[in-house]
Amino acid sequence: MMRYALLLAYDGTDFCGWQIQNNGRTVQEELEKAVYVAFGIRVSVTASGRTDSGVHAAGQVCHFDAQLSVPPERMADALNARLPSDVCVLASCAAPETFDSNRSAKKKTYCYRFYFGERRNPLRDRYALFVRGEADLSKLNEAAALFVGEHDFKAYCASRSQVKTTVRTVYSAEFSAERGLFGGYVSFRVCGGGFLYNMVRTMAGSALFFMQGRMDLATLLRGISLGDRNCVGRTLPPQGLTLESVSYGATALFGGNSV
Amino acid sequence: MMRYALLLAYDGTDFCGWQIQNNGRTVQEELEKAVYVAFGIRVSVTASGRTDSGVHAAGQVCHFDAQLSVPPERMADALNARLPSDVCVLASCAAPETFDSNRSAKKKTYCYRFYFGERRNPLRDRYALFVRGEADLSKLNEAAALFVGEHDFKAYCASRSQVKTTVRTVYSAEFSAERGLFGGYVSFRVCGGGFLYNMVRTMAGSALFFMQGRMDLATLLRGISLGDRNCVGRTLPPQGLTLESVSYGATALFGGNSV
Repeated sequence: MMRYALLLAYDGTDFCGWQIQNNGRTVQEELEKAVYVAFGIRVSVTASGRTDSGVHAAGQVCHFDAQLSVPPERMADALNARLPSDVCVLASCAAPETFDSNRSAKKKTYCYRFYFGERRNPLRDRYALFVRGEADLSKLNEAAALFVGEHDFKAYCASRSQVKTTVRTVYSAEFSAERGLFGGYVSFRVCGGGFLYNMVRTMAGSALFFMQGRMDLATLLRGISLGDRNCVGRTLPPQGLTLESVSYGATALFGGNSV
Repeated sequence: MMRYALLLAYDGTDFCGWQIQNNGRTVQEELEKAVYVAFGIRVSVTASGRTDSGVHAAGQVCHFDAQLSVPPERMADALNARLPSDVCVLASCAAPETFDSNRSAKKKTYCYRFYFGERRNPLRDRYALFVRGEADLSKLNEAAALFVGEHDFKAYCASRSQVKTTVRTVYSAEFSAERGLFGGYVSFRVCGGGFLYNMVRTMAGSALFFMQGRMDLATLLRGISLGDRNCVGRTLPPQGLTLESVSYGATALFGGNSV
Protein backbone atom coordinates (compact mmCIF):
# COMPACT_ATOMS: atom_id res chain seq x y z
CA MET A 1 0.00 0.00 0.00
CA MET A 2 1.10 3.52 -0.66
CA ARG A 3 -0.08 6.81 0.80
CA TYR A 4 -0.89 9.60 -1.63
CA ALA A 5 -1.31 13.26 -0.79
CA LEU A 6 -3.30 15.72 -2.91
CA LEU A 7 -3.31 19.52 -2.94
CA LEU A 8 -6.82 20.69 -3.81
CA ALA A 9 -8.63 23.84 -4.83
CA TYR A 10 -12.40 24.07 -4.95
CA ASP A 11 -15.13 26.61 -5.37
CA GLY A 12 -17.39 25.81 -2.43
CA THR A 13 -20.51 27.54 -3.80
CA ASP A 14 -22.23 24.37 -4.99
CA PHE A 15 -20.82 21.99 -2.37
CA CYS A 16 -22.34 21.01 0.95
CA GLY A 17 -18.84 21.17 2.38
CA TRP A 18 -16.08 18.57 2.43
CA GLN A 19 -17.50 15.59 4.23
CA ILE A 20 -19.75 12.96 2.66
CA GLN A 21 -23.33 13.18 3.88
CA ASN A 22 -26.63 11.67 2.94
CA ASN A 23 -28.09 14.74 1.30
CA GLY A 24 -26.05 17.05 -0.85
CA ARG A 25 -22.97 17.05 -2.98
CA THR A 26 -19.61 17.07 -1.19
CA VAL A 27 -15.98 17.40 -2.23
CA GLN A 28 -14.97 14.13 -0.56
CA GLU A 29 -17.64 12.27 -2.52
CA GLU A 30 -16.54 13.79 -5.86
CA LEU A 31 -12.92 12.89 -5.15
CA GLU A 32 -13.64 9.31 -4.14
CA LYS A 33 -15.80 8.96 -7.24
CA ALA A 34 -12.97 10.28 -9.44
CA VAL A 35 -10.49 7.82 -7.90
CA TYR A 36 -12.94 5.01 -8.59
CA VAL A 37 -13.58 6.05 -12.19
CA ALA A 38 -9.88 6.64 -12.89
CA PHE A 39 -8.42 3.59 -11.14
CA GLY A 40 -11.30 1.25 -10.39
CA ILE A 41 -10.70 1.18 -6.64
CA ARG A 42 -12.74 2.35 -3.67
CA VAL A 43 -10.81 4.56 -1.27
CA SER A 44 -11.63 6.75 1.70
CA VAL A 45 -10.12 10.21 1.42
CA THR A 46 -9.22 12.18 4.56
CA ALA A 47 -8.70 15.96 4.49
CA SER A 48 -6.77 18.32 6.79
CA GLY A 49 -10.15 19.36 8.10
CA ARG A 50 -13.75 19.62 6.99
CA THR A 51 -14.76 22.80 5.29
CA ASP A 52 -18.37 23.87 5.76
CA SER A 53 -21.04 24.19 3.13
CA GLY A 54 -20.20 27.07 0.77
CA VAL A 55 -16.62 27.55 2.01
CA HIS A 56 -13.87 27.61 -0.64
CA ALA A 57 -10.39 26.11 -0.61
CA ALA A 58 -7.31 27.35 -2.42
CA GLY A 59 -4.96 24.85 -0.74
CA GLN A 60 -6.78 22.01 0.99
CA VAL A 61 -4.63 18.90 1.58
CA CYS A 62 -5.97 15.35 1.72
CA HIS A 63 -4.62 11.80 1.60
CA PHE A 64 -5.66 8.24 0.88
CA ASP A 65 -4.09 4.78 0.67
CA ALA A 66 -3.95 2.70 -2.48
CA GLN A 67 -1.71 0.50 -4.55
CA LEU A 68 -1.58 2.10 -7.98
CA SER A 69 0.72 1.86 -10.95
CA VAL A 70 0.42 5.52 -11.93
CA PRO A 71 3.39 7.70 -10.87
CA PRO A 72 2.20 9.77 -7.85
CA GLU A 73 2.89 13.10 -9.58
CA ARG A 74 0.75 12.07 -12.57
CA MET A 75 -2.26 11.32 -10.43
CA ALA A 76 -3.32 14.99 -10.45
CA ASP A 77 -4.00 14.98 -14.20
CA ALA A 78 -5.67 11.56 -14.09
CA LEU A 79 -8.10 12.75 -11.42
CA ASN A 80 -8.69 16.17 -12.97
CA ALA A 81 -9.87 14.50 -16.15
CA ARG A 82 -12.67 12.92 -14.07
CA LEU A 83 -13.47 15.70 -11.61
CA PRO A 84 -16.26 18.27 -12.09
CA SER A 85 -15.19 21.80 -12.97
CA ASP A 86 -15.50 23.23 -9.45
CA VAL A 87 -12.83 21.04 -7.87
CA CYS A 88 -9.28 20.49 -9.08
CA VAL A 89 -6.14 18.66 -7.91
CA LEU A 90 -3.33 21.24 -8.06
CA ALA A 91 -0.59 18.71 -7.21
CA SER A 92 -0.20 15.09 -6.11
CA CYS A 93 2.66 13.17 -4.52
CA ALA A 94 3.61 10.10 -2.53
CA ALA A 95 3.52 10.80 1.22
CA PRO A 96 5.37 9.11 4.09
CA GLU A 97 3.24 6.35 5.61
CA THR A 98 3.23 8.25 8.90
CA PHE A 99 1.75 11.31 7.20
CA ASP A 100 -1.85 12.12 8.04
CA SER A 101 -3.31 15.20 6.37
CA ASN A 102 -5.44 15.89 9.44
CA ARG A 103 -3.29 14.84 12.41
CA SER A 104 0.07 15.93 10.96
CA ALA A 105 -1.19 19.46 10.21
CA LYS A 106 0.78 22.07 12.14
CA LYS A 107 -0.88 25.27 10.96
CA LYS A 108 -3.85 26.31 8.87
CA THR A 109 -4.44 29.66 7.23
CA TYR A 110 -7.94 30.86 6.47
CA CYS A 111 -8.95 34.09 4.77
CA TYR A 112 -12.30 35.84 5.14
CA ARG A 113 -12.88 38.55 2.50
CA PHE A 114 -15.07 41.64 2.50
CA TYR A 115 -15.67 44.38 0.02
CA PHE A 116 -16.94 47.72 1.24
CA GLY A 117 -18.90 50.26 -0.72
CA GLU A 118 -22.22 51.86 -1.48
CA ARG A 119 -23.73 48.99 -3.45
CA ARG A 120 -23.05 45.33 -4.02
CA ASN A 121 -21.47 44.12 -7.23
CA PRO A 122 -22.30 40.69 -8.66
CA LEU A 123 -18.72 40.30 -9.95
CA ARG A 124 -17.42 40.47 -6.38
CA ASP A 125 -19.99 38.42 -4.46
CA ARG A 126 -18.70 34.93 -5.08
CA TYR A 127 -15.65 35.06 -2.81
CA ALA A 128 -16.37 37.99 -0.53
CA LEU A 129 -19.06 39.56 1.65
CA PHE A 130 -20.45 42.96 0.77
CA VAL A 131 -20.56 45.47 3.62
CA ARG A 132 -22.16 48.87 3.15
CA GLY A 133 -19.91 51.75 4.16
CA GLU A 134 -16.20 52.27 4.47
CA ALA A 135 -13.63 49.96 6.00
CA ASP A 136 -11.58 51.07 8.98
CA LEU A 137 -8.53 48.83 8.87
CA SER A 138 -7.03 50.08 12.12
CA LYS A 139 -10.27 49.41 14.01
CA LEU A 140 -10.55 45.96 12.46
CA ASN A 141 -6.97 45.19 13.41
CA GLU A 142 -7.56 46.40 16.96
CA ALA A 143 -10.13 43.62 17.29
CA ALA A 144 -8.01 41.07 15.39
CA ALA A 145 -5.12 41.55 17.82
CA LEU A 146 -7.32 40.22 20.64
CA PHE A 147 -7.58 36.82 18.94
CA VAL A 148 -3.83 36.17 18.81
CA GLY A 149 -2.52 33.72 21.40
CA GLU A 150 -3.91 30.71 23.23
CA HIS A 151 -7.53 31.30 24.25
CA ASP A 152 -10.65 29.36 25.07
CA PHE A 153 -12.70 30.13 21.96
CA LYS A 154 -15.87 28.52 23.36
CA ALA A 155 -17.95 31.58 22.50
CA TYR A 156 -16.68 31.47 18.89
CA CYS A 157 -17.77 27.90 18.31
CA ALA A 158 -21.16 26.77 17.01
CA SER A 159 -23.06 25.29 19.96
CA ARG A 160 -23.82 22.05 18.10
CA SER A 161 -20.10 21.31 17.88
CA GLN A 162 -18.73 18.41 19.94
CA VAL A 163 -15.05 18.76 20.74
CA LYS A 164 -12.92 17.80 23.76
CA THR A 165 -11.52 21.26 24.26
CA THR A 166 -12.35 24.67 22.86
CA VAL A 167 -8.86 26.03 23.59
CA ARG A 168 -7.05 26.97 20.38
CA THR A 169 -3.88 28.85 19.50
CA VAL A 170 -3.99 31.64 16.95
CA TYR A 171 -0.55 32.56 15.61
CA SER A 172 -1.57 35.60 13.61
CA ALA A 173 -4.75 37.45 12.68
CA GLU A 174 -4.70 40.49 10.46
CA PHE A 175 -6.91 42.56 8.21
CA SER A 176 -5.28 43.97 5.09
CA ALA A 177 -6.24 45.62 1.81
CA GLU A 178 -6.03 43.39 -1.25
CA ARG A 179 -6.51 43.99 -4.98
CA GLY A 180 -8.94 41.86 -6.92
CA LEU A 181 -9.98 41.86 -10.57
CA PHE A 182 -13.01 44.07 -9.98
CA GLY A 183 -11.83 46.33 -7.19
CA GLY A 184 -10.37 46.30 -3.71
CA TYR A 185 -11.10 43.88 -0.88
CA VAL A 186 -10.41 43.75 2.84
CA SER A 187 -9.01 40.36 3.77
CA PHE A 188 -8.94 38.90 7.27
CA ARG A 189 -6.15 36.33 7.26
CA VAL A 190 -5.82 34.13 10.30
CA CYS A 191 -3.27 31.43 10.98
CA GLY A 192 -3.70 28.96 13.81
CA GLY A 193 -2.98 25.47 15.05
CA GLY A 194 -6.60 24.54 14.43
CA PHE A 195 -10.04 26.11 14.37
CA LEU A 196 -13.40 25.30 15.87
CA TYR A 197 -16.56 24.97 13.82
CA ASN A 198 -17.56 28.50 12.61
CA MET A 199 -14.66 30.08 14.55
CA VAL A 200 -13.12 32.12 11.70
CA ARG A 201 -16.50 33.37 10.48
CA THR A 202 -17.43 34.43 14.02
CA MET A 203 -14.05 36.14 14.56
CA ALA A 204 -14.54 38.05 11.30
CA GLY A 205 -18.08 38.98 12.34
CA SER A 206 -16.98 40.12 15.79
CA ALA A 207 -14.25 42.37 14.39
CA LEU A 208 -16.80 43.81 11.95
CA PHE A 209 -19.28 44.49 14.80
CA PHE A 210 -16.52 46.30 16.69
CA MET A 211 -15.61 48.40 13.64
CA GLN A 212 -19.27 49.31 13.17
CA GLY A 213 -19.57 50.40 16.80
CA ARG A 214 -22.09 47.63 17.55
CA MET A 215 -19.81 46.06 20.17
CA ASP A 216 -17.10 47.59 22.33
CA LEU A 217 -13.65 46.27 23.13
CA ALA A 218 -14.57 45.29 26.70
CA THR A 219 -17.40 43.12 25.37
CA LEU A 220 -15.15 41.48 22.81
CA LEU A 221 -12.60 40.75 25.53
CA ARG A 222 -15.30 39.21 27.70
CA GLY A 223 -16.22 36.91 24.82
CA ILE A 224 -12.65 35.71 24.57
CA SER A 225 -11.74 35.50 28.26
CA LEU A 226 -15.07 34.27 29.69
CA GLY A 227 -16.49 32.38 26.71
CA ASP A 228 -19.71 34.39 26.88
CA ARG A 229 -21.70 33.72 23.71
CA ASN A 230 -23.50 37.05 24.03
CA CYS A 231 -20.18 38.82 23.58
CA VAL A 232 -19.43 37.82 19.99
CA GLY A 233 -20.59 39.24 16.67
CA ARG A 234 -22.57 37.56 13.95
CA THR A 235 -21.24 34.39 12.29
CA LEU A 236 -20.72 35.63 8.74
CA PRO A 237 -21.95 33.71 5.67
CA PRO A 238 -19.66 31.08 4.12
CA GLN A 239 -18.94 32.56 0.67
CA GLY A 240 -16.35 34.99 2.08
CA LEU A 241 -14.27 32.20 3.60
CA THR A 242 -11.40 30.37 1.90
CA LEU A 243 -9.04 27.77 3.36
CA GLU A 244 -5.79 29.10 1.96
CA SER A 245 -3.13 26.67 3.08
CA VAL A 246 -2.19 23.88 5.47
CA SER A 247 1.34 23.58 6.80
CA TYR A 248 3.02 20.32 7.84
CA GLY A 249 6.23 21.74 9.25
CA ALA A 250 9.26 19.91 7.93
CA THR A 251 7.28 17.32 5.96
CA ALA A 252 8.08 17.94 2.30
CA LEU A 253 5.10 17.41 0.00
CA PHE A 254 4.26 18.23 -3.62
CA GLY A 255 7.70 18.54 -5.12
CA GLY A 256 10.10 18.89 -2.25
CA ASN A 257 8.99 22.11 -0.58
CA SER A 258 7.49 21.83 2.84
CA VAL A 259 4.05 23.40 2.71
CA MET B 1 -41.22 61.76 -20.14
CA MET B 2 -37.79 61.54 -18.64
CA ARG B 3 -34.71 59.64 -19.74
CA TYR B 4 -32.91 57.57 -17.15
CA ALA B 5 -29.42 56.13 -17.44
CA LEU B 6 -28.17 53.13 -15.45
CA LEU B 7 -24.66 51.88 -14.80
CA LEU B 8 -24.76 48.09 -14.57
CA ALA B 9 -22.58 45.21 -13.49
CA TYR B 10 -23.46 41.61 -14.21
CA ASP B 11 -21.95 38.17 -14.01
CA GLY B 12 -22.66 36.83 -17.49
CA THR B 13 -22.26 33.13 -16.60
CA ASP B 14 -25.96 32.34 -16.39
CA PHE B 15 -27.18 34.88 -18.97
CA CYS B 16 -27.74 34.34 -22.69
CA GLY B 17 -26.29 37.80 -23.21
CA TRP B 18 -27.91 41.21 -23.05
CA GLN B 19 -30.68 41.15 -25.60
CA ILE B 20 -34.12 39.66 -25.06
CA GLN B 21 -34.64 36.45 -27.02
CA ASN B 22 -37.19 33.70 -27.13
CA ASN B 23 -35.11 31.08 -25.39
CA GLY B 24 -32.89 31.87 -22.47
CA ARG B 25 -32.53 34.37 -19.72
CA THR B 26 -31.14 37.79 -20.65
CA VAL B 27 -30.04 40.90 -18.75
CA GLN B 28 -32.42 43.17 -20.67
CA GLU B 29 -35.35 40.97 -19.70
CA GLU B 30 -34.41 40.93 -16.01
CA LEU B 31 -34.05 44.71 -16.00
CA GLU B 32 -37.36 45.37 -17.74
CA LYS B 33 -39.00 42.95 -15.33
CA ALA B 34 -37.48 44.78 -12.34
CA VAL B 35 -38.72 48.15 -13.66
CA TYR B 36 -42.18 46.67 -14.03
CA VAL B 37 -42.22 45.13 -10.57
CA ALA B 38 -40.80 48.27 -8.95
CA PHE B 39 -42.83 50.91 -10.78
CA GLY B 40 -45.64 49.12 -12.56
CA ILE B 41 -44.68 50.33 -16.03
CA ARG B 42 -43.47 48.54 -19.15
CA VAL B 43 -40.31 50.02 -20.64
CA SER B 44 -37.82 49.04 -23.29
CA VAL B 45 -34.23 49.28 -22.09
CA THR B 46 -31.41 50.02 -24.58
CA ALA B 47 -27.77 49.28 -23.75
CA SER B 48 -24.50 50.70 -25.10
CA GLY B 49 -24.19 47.43 -26.98
CA ARG B 50 -25.21 43.81 -26.70
CA THR B 51 -22.95 41.55 -24.77
CA ASP B 52 -22.86 37.92 -25.89
CA SER B 53 -23.92 34.89 -23.93
CA GLY B 54 -21.54 34.33 -21.00
CA VAL B 55 -19.80 37.72 -21.27
CA HIS B 56 -19.58 39.82 -18.08
CA ALA B 57 -19.98 43.55 -17.55
CA ALA B 58 -18.38 45.72 -14.90
CA GLY B 59 -19.64 48.99 -16.37
CA GLN B 60 -22.41 48.52 -18.93
CA VAL B 61 -24.55 51.62 -19.53
CA CYS B 62 -28.21 51.55 -20.56
CA HIS B 63 -31.15 53.93 -20.74
CA PHE B 64 -34.95 53.99 -20.88
CA ASP B 65 -37.75 56.53 -20.90
CA ALA B 66 -40.39 56.82 -18.22
CA GLN B 67 -42.27 59.27 -16.07
CA LEU B 68 -41.54 58.28 -12.49
CA SER B 69 -41.81 60.01 -9.15
CA VAL B 70 -38.72 58.38 -7.66
CA PRO B 71 -35.59 60.61 -7.62
CA PRO B 72 -33.31 59.34 -10.44
CA GLU B 73 -30.41 58.62 -8.08
CA ARG B 74 -32.67 56.46 -5.87
CA MET B 75 -33.73 54.26 -8.74
CA ALA B 76 -30.61 52.09 -8.36
CA ASP B 77 -31.69 50.82 -4.93
CA ALA B 78 -35.31 50.40 -5.99
CA LEU B 79 -34.27 48.19 -8.90
CA ASN B 80 -31.61 46.27 -6.99
CA ALA B 81 -34.24 45.18 -4.49
CA ARG B 82 -36.02 43.44 -7.40
CA LEU B 83 -33.08 42.20 -9.47
CA PRO B 84 -31.60 38.70 -9.22
CA SER B 85 -28.21 38.39 -7.54
CA ASP B 86 -26.15 38.23 -10.75
CA VAL B 87 -27.07 41.70 -12.02
CA CYS B 88 -26.86 44.98 -10.13
CA VAL B 89 -27.41 48.68 -10.81
CA LEU B 90 -24.25 50.45 -9.60
CA ALA B 91 -25.62 53.95 -10.20
CA SER B 92 -28.62 55.69 -11.76
CA CYS B 93 -29.24 59.24 -12.96
CA ALA B 94 -31.38 61.44 -15.16
CA ALA B 95 -29.88 61.77 -18.64
CA PRO B 96 -30.26 64.53 -21.24
CA GLU B 97 -33.09 63.70 -23.67
CA THR B 98 -30.55 63.62 -26.50
CA PHE B 99 -28.52 60.97 -24.69
CA ASP B 100 -28.59 57.49 -26.21
CA SER B 101 -26.52 54.84 -24.41
CA ASN B 102 -25.77 53.16 -27.74
CA ARG B 103 -25.43 56.01 -30.26
CA SER B 104 -23.83 58.54 -27.91
CA ALA B 105 -21.06 56.10 -26.89
CA LYS B 106 -17.64 57.42 -27.83
CA LYS B 107 -15.40 54.63 -26.58
CA LYS B 108 -15.76 51.18 -25.09
CA THR B 109 -13.20 49.26 -23.09
CA TYR B 110 -13.24 45.48 -22.97
CA CYS B 111 -10.91 43.22 -21.04
CA TYR B 112 -10.13 39.59 -21.87
CA ARG B 113 -8.40 37.74 -19.03
CA PHE B 114 -6.14 34.68 -19.02
CA TYR B 115 -4.33 32.81 -16.32
CA PHE B 116 -1.31 30.76 -17.22
CA GLY B 117 0.07 27.77 -15.37
CA GLU B 118 0.44 24.04 -15.15
CA ARG B 119 -3.11 23.23 -14.08
CA ARG B 120 -6.45 24.97 -13.99
CA ASN B 121 -7.89 26.27 -10.76
CA PRO B 122 -11.66 26.37 -10.15
CA LEU B 123 -11.31 29.61 -8.16
CA ARG B 124 -9.94 31.37 -11.24
CA ASP B 125 -12.12 29.96 -14.02
CA ARG B 126 -15.16 32.21 -13.71
CA TYR B 127 -13.65 35.39 -15.16
CA ALA B 128 -10.60 34.15 -17.04
CA LEU B 129 -9.40 31.50 -19.47
CA PHE B 130 -6.82 28.95 -18.38
CA VAL B 131 -3.86 28.53 -20.73
CA ARG B 132 -1.26 25.84 -20.07
CA GLY B 133 2.29 27.16 -20.03
CA GLU B 134 3.90 30.50 -19.39
CA ALA B 135 2.83 33.92 -20.63
CA ASP B 136 5.13 35.96 -22.84
CA LEU B 137 3.88 39.52 -22.39
CA SER B 138 6.23 41.06 -24.95
CA LYS B 139 5.12 38.59 -27.62
CA LEU B 140 1.47 39.18 -26.78
CA ASN B 141 1.98 42.92 -27.00
CA GLU B 142 3.77 42.59 -30.33
CA ALA B 143 0.53 41.16 -31.70
CA ALA B 144 -1.69 43.62 -29.81
CA ALA B 145 0.13 46.57 -31.39
CA LEU B 146 -1.08 45.44 -34.83
CA PHE B 147 -4.71 46.00 -33.83
CA VAL B 148 -4.27 49.69 -32.95
CA GLY B 149 -5.58 52.14 -35.53
CA GLU B 150 -8.37 52.12 -38.11
CA HIS B 151 -8.61 48.72 -39.82
CA ASP B 152 -11.10 46.59 -41.65
CA PHE B 153 -11.69 43.91 -39.03
CA LYS B 154 -13.75 41.71 -41.37
CA ALA B 155 -11.69 38.64 -40.49
CA TYR B 156 -12.28 39.24 -36.78
CA CYS B 157 -16.03 39.28 -37.08
CA ALA B 158 -18.34 36.27 -36.79
CA SER B 159 -19.61 35.49 -40.29
CA ARG B 160 -23.25 35.51 -39.19
CA SER B 161 -22.91 39.20 -38.27
CA GLN B 162 -24.75 41.74 -40.43
CA VAL B 163 -23.20 45.19 -40.29
CA LYS B 164 -22.81 48.00 -42.84
CA THR B 165 -19.07 48.28 -42.43
CA THR B 166 -16.45 46.16 -40.72
CA VAL B 167 -14.04 49.08 -40.39
CA ARG B 168 -13.39 49.94 -36.74
CA THR B 169 -10.94 52.14 -34.84
CA VAL B 170 -8.97 50.69 -31.97
CA TYR B 171 -7.45 53.37 -29.73
CA SER B 172 -5.37 51.09 -27.53
CA ALA B 173 -4.76 47.38 -27.07
CA GLU B 174 -2.44 46.07 -24.41
CA PHE B 175 -1.65 42.95 -22.43
CA SER B 176 -0.60 43.49 -18.84
CA ALA B 177 -0.10 41.49 -15.65
CA GLU B 178 -2.82 41.91 -13.04
CA ARG B 179 -3.26 40.62 -9.47
CA GLY B 180 -6.38 38.73 -8.53
CA LEU B 181 -7.51 37.16 -5.27
CA PHE B 182 -6.18 33.71 -6.17
CA GLY B 183 -3.09 34.53 -8.21
CA GLY B 184 -1.90 36.48 -11.20
CA TYR B 185 -3.72 37.08 -14.48
CA VAL B 186 -2.79 38.39 -17.91
CA SER B 187 -5.32 40.96 -19.04
CA PHE B 188 -5.85 42.09 -22.62
CA ARG B 189 -7.45 45.52 -22.39
CA VAL B 190 -8.70 47.05 -25.61
CA CYS B 191 -10.35 50.42 -26.11
CA GLY B 192 -12.10 51.29 -29.35
CA GLY B 193 -14.88 53.30 -30.93
CA GLY B 194 -16.90 50.13 -31.34
CA PHE B 195 -16.43 46.41 -31.81
CA LEU B 196 -17.79 43.79 -34.17
CA TYR B 197 -19.45 40.61 -32.97
CA ASN B 198 -16.74 38.33 -31.48
CA MET B 199 -14.00 40.85 -32.40
CA VAL B 200 -12.32 41.14 -28.97
CA ARG B 201 -12.39 37.39 -28.38
CA THR B 202 -10.85 36.77 -31.81
CA MET B 203 -8.18 39.45 -31.25
CA ALA B 204 -7.28 37.83 -27.92
CA GLY B 205 -7.18 34.40 -29.59
CA SER B 206 -4.99 35.65 -32.44
CA ALA B 207 -2.47 37.22 -30.09
CA LEU B 208 -2.41 33.96 -28.11
CA PHE B 209 -1.82 31.91 -31.28
CA PHE B 210 1.08 34.23 -32.17
CA MET B 211 2.58 33.88 -28.68
CA GLN B 212 2.29 30.09 -28.92
CA GLY B 213 4.06 30.07 -32.30
CA ARG B 214 0.94 28.75 -34.04
CA MET B 215 0.72 31.83 -36.29
CA ASP B 216 3.43 34.22 -37.48
CA LEU B 217 3.35 38.00 -37.67
CA ALA B 218 3.00 38.05 -41.47
CA THR B 219 -0.13 35.90 -41.21
CA LEU B 220 -1.61 38.09 -38.50
CA LEU B 221 -0.93 41.17 -40.64
CA ARG B 222 -2.63 39.52 -43.62
CA GLY B 223 -5.72 38.91 -41.45
CA ILE B 224 -5.88 42.58 -40.57
CA SER B 225 -4.96 44.13 -43.94
CA LEU B 226 -6.71 41.68 -46.29
CA GLY B 227 -9.56 40.45 -44.09
CA ASP B 228 -8.56 36.83 -44.66
CA ARG B 229 -10.47 34.64 -42.19
CA ASN B 230 -7.80 31.96 -42.36
CA CYS B 231 -5.34 34.40 -40.87
CA VAL B 232 -6.88 34.81 -37.41
CA GLY B 233 -6.64 32.71 -34.27
CA ARG B 234 -9.40 30.96 -32.40
CA THR B 235 -12.36 32.94 -31.04
CA LEU B 236 -11.89 32.41 -27.31
CA PRO B 237 -14.71 31.37 -24.97
CA PRO B 238 -16.88 34.10 -23.40
CA GLN B 239 -16.11 33.72 -19.68
CA GLY B 240 -12.79 35.57 -20.04
CA LEU B 241 -14.45 38.68 -21.47
CA THR B 242 -15.73 41.66 -19.49
CA LEU B 243 -17.14 44.94 -20.77
CA GLU B 244 -15.31 47.29 -18.44
CA SER B 245 -16.56 50.77 -19.31
CA VAL B 246 -18.34 52.94 -21.85
CA SER B 247 -17.30 56.54 -22.35
CA TYR B 248 -19.62 59.33 -23.49
CA GLY B 249 -17.07 62.09 -23.88
CA ALA B 250 -18.20 65.29 -22.22
CA THR B 251 -21.65 63.95 -21.22
CA ALA B 252 -21.68 63.87 -17.43
CA LEU B 253 -23.55 60.89 -16.00
CA PHE B 254 -23.86 59.23 -12.60
CA GLY B 255 -22.96 62.06 -10.29
CA GLY B 256 -21.27 64.66 -12.42
CA ASN B 257 -18.21 62.84 -13.73
CA SER B 258 -18.10 62.13 -17.42
CA VAL B 259 -17.65 58.40 -17.87
